[in-house]
Amino acid sequence: MYQHNGKTTDKLIAEEAEITNMPSKREHDVLVSTGEQITIAKLCMCLQKMGYDAISYTGWQIPILTNHIYGNARIKEIATDRIKDDLQERKIVVVAGFQGVDEDLNITTLGRGGSDTTAVALAAALQAERCDIYTDVDGIFSADPRVVKNVSKIENISYDEMLELASLGAKVLHNRCVEIGKKYHIPIYVKSTFEEESRGTLVHEEEYMEKLSIRGIAKEDNIVRITLVGKNNKIGQIYRVFKLLADYDINVDIIVQAFGEHMAKDISFTIKEKDLSLTLELLNQHADMFDIQEIKSCTGLSKISIVGVGIGNHPGVAANLFEVLYENNINMHMISTSEIKISVLVNHNVADIAMNAIHNRFIEEIENNSIITR
Amino acid sequence: MYQHNGKTTDKLIAEEAEITNMPSKREHDVLVSTGEQITIAKLCMCLQKMGYDAISYTGWQIPILTNHIYGNARIKEIATDRIKDDLQERKIVVVAGFQGVDEDLNITTLGRGGSDTTAVALAAALQAERCDIYTDVDGIFSADPRVVKNVSKIENISYDEMLELASLGAKVLHNRCVEIGKKYHIPIYVKSTFEEESRGTLVHEEEYMEKLSIRGIAKEDNIVRITLVGKNNKIGQIYRVFKLLADYDINVDIIVQAFGEHMAKDISFTIKEKDLSLTLELLNQHADMFDIQEIKSCTGLSKISIVGVGIGNHPGVAANLFEVLYENNINMHMISTSEIKISVLVNHNVADIAMNAIHNRFIEEIENNSIITR
Repeated sequence: MYQHNGKTTDKLIAEEAEITNMPSKREHDVLVSTGEQITIAKLCMCLQKMGYDAISYTGWQIPILTNHIYGNARIKEIATDRIKDDLQERKIVVVAGFQGVDEDLNITTLGRGGSDTTAVALAAALQAERCDIYTDVDGIFSADPRVVKNVSKIENISYDEMLELASLGAKVLHNRCVEIGKKYHIPIYVKSTFEEESRGTLVHEEEYMEKLSIRGIAKEDNIVRITLVGKNNKIGQIYRVFKLLADYDINVDIIVQAFGEHMAKDISFTIKEKDLSLTLELLNQHADMFDIQEIKSCTGLSKISIVGVGIGNHPGVAANLFEVLYENNINMHMISTSEIKISVLVNHNVADIAMNAIHNRFIEEIENNSIITR
Repeated sequence: MYQHNGKTTDKLIAEEAEITNMPSKREHDVLVSTGEQITIAKLCMCLQKMGYDAISYTGWQIPILTNHIYGNARIKEIATDRIKDDLQERKIVVVAGFQGVDEDLNITTLGRGGSDTTAVALAAALQAERCDIYTDVDGIFSADPRVVKNVSKIENISYDEMLELASLGAKVLHNRCVEIGKKYHIPIYVKSTFEEESRGTLVHEEEYMEKLSIRGIAKEDNIVRITLVGKNNKIGQIYRVFKLLADYDINVDIIVQAFGEHMAKDISFTIKEKDLSLTLELLNQHADMFDIQEIKSCTGLSKISIVGVGIGNHPGVAANLFEVLYENNINMHMISTSEIKISVLVNHNVADIAMNAIHNRFIEEIENNSIITR
């Protein structure tokens, strides 16, 4: 299985932009799918030069059958006969990631995270023991090393924890491939391409133990909190607000509703800063329909999340988190909790201080004291 | 139909050379076939931007079924249902040239002249009225404009004449595509991509007329004449000499045999200079077996050919040609004639003088005097 480096594809997209800023989605996929095709041929040549028997396959040669959504296709089925025959003959099989073919033989691409998705989907189709993904980092870390100094590598992590960390900005594995791994029980081993001795991170179904285990701390910048204040202490048909935003591809993350005696009086939610102007425009247009009296927005926020199995069952974690922030004079603008994570919104200018303090309390201190084994 | 510009492919081949100088032929085809795939996608984007409804197809999408000779595949069959449907819907269909797919879904490429070959083969499969090929020159000329000053454009030429000119170095159309055109009666119209008013050259089945019509003068440099002198006035099993050379991919062009009273005493033939050392090595190794007493070679020759329907029936042409050379003090080292051409070997250092003198006599003078209409 092979990890797409993306340089060739970036160049193709730049050349495309010189032609048009509205390329046909079908032709876009015809164009960008060549990047991986070039890579599989070159990789096979390298392997052959080293004396290995290698053979390449594009998406349509396997075939990796997808639906017909150009640029963001979903895998429907992967044929494995040919690969199995090759493996039987001890060949190294190199399959192009990121691409497939629809039922009418049109070339499709899988969109973001498509290369990893192909790899894990292939592993599932072949009922492989494990899928190894070689990437440019040495696995998943307890926090972003550019922000936090003493990060430690996570050696084992469950699919669910990984899904939380991925969506929170860990960016090493895309959610789509982790979801397939979870669904088909394929352990995913993330390792570094560049380090011979890389031990990496194993994403798999861990046995749930009662004990708490904090995996990592993630941060996401450029968050806006929107608060809608209802007329006469009520907001009407609130689900339609979110349906409206979804129709315009605006991603709503945390939603917090404060209940009054009978009715919701106001509701807060977060969006990405890039969606702010469109969101305000839509909300203002529909303010009357939804009984909205006032729209408040607070920009320049960062979301910090701690992720780990057992958080939901250990109320002490939240208290501990709030204490750290209080000790560092950091205000929280919003709190959200789930079974395996707690997220807080803080001002962007203190986010890195918060990250370090939280990481120190939950990862480093605990590691050093061996109170909780990870 | 689209003419391959080759720049992308050249770059891919350079990158390949950095990896290995012995690439697997299968992976080589996987790699270089991406060049045309990139081109068809970009061309469709351009057409769509101009408001046309365009759709691209790779070789395997059509499919253009070939044999399994990687790098030099021959087209076996072209499916046309999908193209016909698209044309019915008034779409512009853009098909990748130079590539196909074998019965096992491996990618193949057609080798030299493959893009033109795809175009004419498609036209044949679609029973098209004509195949237009846009290239970087404005058609076929009566001689190489870099050598001869007053060249004129050929407006009409028969397949056979074109085949002679192509193999003699005109280099605009590859023989393979002309052969397909001849076989399936597809007129090929060669025009310039860059000139709006290009009238080009039409290659088609001309009605044979009794009158002589000289089309063009071609030159090929770096020719070697080899002469084998037989033992006891005989050369044994001469066919085996040529079989031996063919086994080593050495292309023998003109063969002239001088007959003695009962047996061949010696035989001369021409090869390209690049094949000289291998040819001499092979001949020396087998000299005894073939009863060869002496091997002579004469390097630094050029072949000049005049091509035109009716040459074989007009002995005056040869006489005229020899006269021109005699007037210019140019020695001939070998002569070869066919129905539609006469070739002579001359020293390389006087080849351009010969070209100009011949062109002047056979093309310019005749044009000016309108003795023979072309």
